[in-house]
Amino acid sequence: MAAGENPRARCRLGYDFHIMNVTVRGQTRHYRTVTFDPARNAVRLIEQRLLPHQFKVVATCDYRATARAITDMVVRGAPAIAATAAYGLAQGLRAFSGGSRAQFERHTREVYATLKAARPTAVDPVNAMDWMLRELAAVEGVAEKQRVALLLAERFADEDVEHCEAIGQQGAKLIREGMKVLTHCNAGWLACVDIGTATAPLYAAQAQGRKFHVYCDETRPRSQGATLTAWELAQQGVSHAIIADNAAGHLMQRGLIDLVIVGSDRVLGRTGEVTNKIGTYTKAVLAHRHGIPFYVAIPLSTIDWRLKAGRDIPIEERAGSEVLGAWGVTASGRRTYVRVANPTSPACNPAFDVTPPELITGIITPIGIFRPKDLWRKRRQLGG
Amino acid sequence: MAAGENPRARCRLGYDFHIMNVTVRGQTRHYRTVTFDPARNAVRLIEQRLLPHQFKVVATCDYRATARAITDMVVRGAPAIAATAAYGLAQGLRAFSGGSRAQFERHTREVYATLKAARPTAVDPVNAMDWMLRELAAVEGVAEKQRVALLLAERFADEDVEHCEAIGQQGAKLIREGMKVLTHCNAGWLACVDIGTATAPLYAAQAQGRKFHVYCDETRPRSQGATLTAWELAQQGVSHAIIADNAAGHLMQRGLIDLVIVGSDRVLGRTGEVTNKIGTYTKAVLAHRHGIPFYVAIPLSTIDWRLKAGRDIPIEERAGSEVLGAWGVTASGRRTYVRVANPTSPACNPAFDVTPPELITGIITPIGIFRPKDLWRKRRQLGG
Repeated sequence: MAAGENPRARCRLGYDFHIMNVTVRGQTRHYRTVTFDPARNAVRLIEQRLLPHQFKVVATCDYRATARAITDMVVRGAPAIAATAAYGLAQGLRAFSGGSRAQFERHTREVYATLKAARPTAVDPVNAMDWMLRELAAVEGVAEKQRVALLLAERFADEDVEHCEAIGQQGAKLIREGMKVLTHCNAGWLACVDIGTATAPLYAAQAQGRKFHVYCDETRPRSQGATLTAWELAQQGVSHAIIADNAAGHLMQRGLIDLVIVGSDRVLGRTGEVTNKIGTYTKAVLAHRHGIPFYVAIPLSTIDWRLKAGRDIPIEERAGSEVLGAWGVTASGRRTYVRVANPTSPACNPAFDVTPPELITGIITPIGIFRPKDLWRKRRQLGG
Repeated sequence: MAAGENPRARCRLGYDFHIMNVTVRGQTRHYRTVTFDPARNAVRLIEQRLLPHQFKVVATCDYRATARAITDMVVRGAPAIAATAAYGLAQGLRAFSGGSRAQFERHTREVYATLKAARPTAVDPVNAMDWMLRELAAVEGVAEKQRVALLLAERFADEDVEHCEAIGQQGAKLIREGMKVLTHCNAGWLACVDIGTATAPLYAAQAQGRKFHVYCDETRPRSQGATLTAWELAQQGVSHAIIADNAAGHLMQRGLIDLVIVGSDRVLGRTGEVTNKIGTYTKAVLAHRHGIPFYVAIPLSTIDWRLKAGRDIPIEERAGSEVLGAWGVTASGRRTYVRVANPTSPACNPAFDVTPPELITGIITPIGIFRPKDLWRKRRQLGG
């Protein structure tokens, strides 16, 4: 957030709510994770680090602040940070004034480099900006490039929403009345511009009038299921309960889970292997044992057509402090970290795992549901 | 703890340590979870609710305080609370003075009832006290009954230690040099009088000079693995790391786990099914998929010869607050609960699950390692 800004003034719902005094309205308003305010040349982002305990929309008023918001995880989720970078690039170009064509080109490179460096391991922001720059190359004149840059960023964000809507339409038929659905981590609208990937079939089924129940895995160590997914579902009025990651096996054994849907950070087009948040593999093994369908919902951009084997995917090892404690709010409403574990013990904290294709019933994409082993054969259709 | 007592004065190690200023000594001293001080007629207990952040031994100076320590979970774990009740009964009888034989009998019934009511669902304390009263029935005279009661309680505690030692001897051969062992929850010496059940083979292998590494499942929602087991292993100098419950599947997939050992709250003698902390079933399913041996370590008293099917075991549903947040210490050392999850979301919190016999390699008992399906056939040998 840029200095001197009052975040409260920019809260799009017009209120802040807090763990102890939530205002539940009759109807939940739905809006995008990332938007743009042309009048102020500002990117607006839901401040995800404060959720679910506080709701705030922040504005970043120059491209450097937008890059910092990505780095600091104000916004997270591959599709969401891609849209943020796209808007950030437009924002940066639009801020240029009174220089030569050569100066504008230099400025463009600097904006691009700053946004690219914001989350160095992510490929989505780079792909989004590369696409914009390719399109802009054909546009003449600084003012026209500035105008078109924003149109392209808007188009990118809109297409992300369209992809998620299409995932919802494809997947909604899997959600039958009264079903109990398990999901892991957050592949919801907070991870995208809107709607989400794993949550899209749920929201689409809800819009079609069906009732169902969602179990949200807590998703330790970062608890995205208990915080972000549960918050989203509560906002949407979807019946749900949070469970410890340890509980899913027992619930499956007792016949209390009918379907599993998760998102993915990378699906290998050649093998059908799925990389996703740590614990996804465990849920797939359990679902397979119990004959419960296990689906992965993704936009086509999540398919990696190059990598040859899941074992080649580097698994990020994150800080032990995530496992050794938890972030939450105290009774007095103060956000704080507590150390839970024995203070002299180390932790091992792999952040992702790889699920083999034989455990996956189907990959829900915007253009249809595919068996993971069919991806390579259908790569032309899938844009590979 | 009885009023007016200074807990610091009763710390057997002579120091309190705290998350920010642990004193690591060259050698870890080993002592019992539950002991008795005849001079003060006091039961001494490790205050388990403060671990791992603070170490304290408290004394309960009358039987009512001992019962309260069980109720308040100062001490937990079936073998540990059984020994606590046994000592509490002796403590209560020894406190009687100057009355008639009939008054002593009434007093005995009151002490028994008070300790029995301390944890109404537990059967172990009742079994321990029933055994003592049967033995005492043959003893003549109040003074002699008082003397023998303490001898019986000491014998009960000693036998628990012997059982755990024997489990260790039986199981130690499974732990080979350089192995990586996974355990879940706490079936350690804090749950027994000493040594533990699932930890006994580890400590025995360590005593035999072998080096190995233990992964402790965090064991959400109550985190007994991250708190109690990790603390125990650190005290014993056993190489270990805490992992999120989500991580075990990935570690198995990468070949980083060679063996799993857990404890149990109830093993069905008729079917070989194992009840244990929620998440145990999941780890057994994963181990089975990866061909990793999965063992359950128990004293013979954990075998239930009556129940006919695992589905008849009532699964305790605990408070949602356990899943929705965490207890830990803040940077300033204050113990506090933080709410992690979305404030408007409910939780579902089953505390135990049931693992079927086909997923279990062996049951490690004090008298040998048995296949779970052989228990019933060998019930005479096993005391059934």
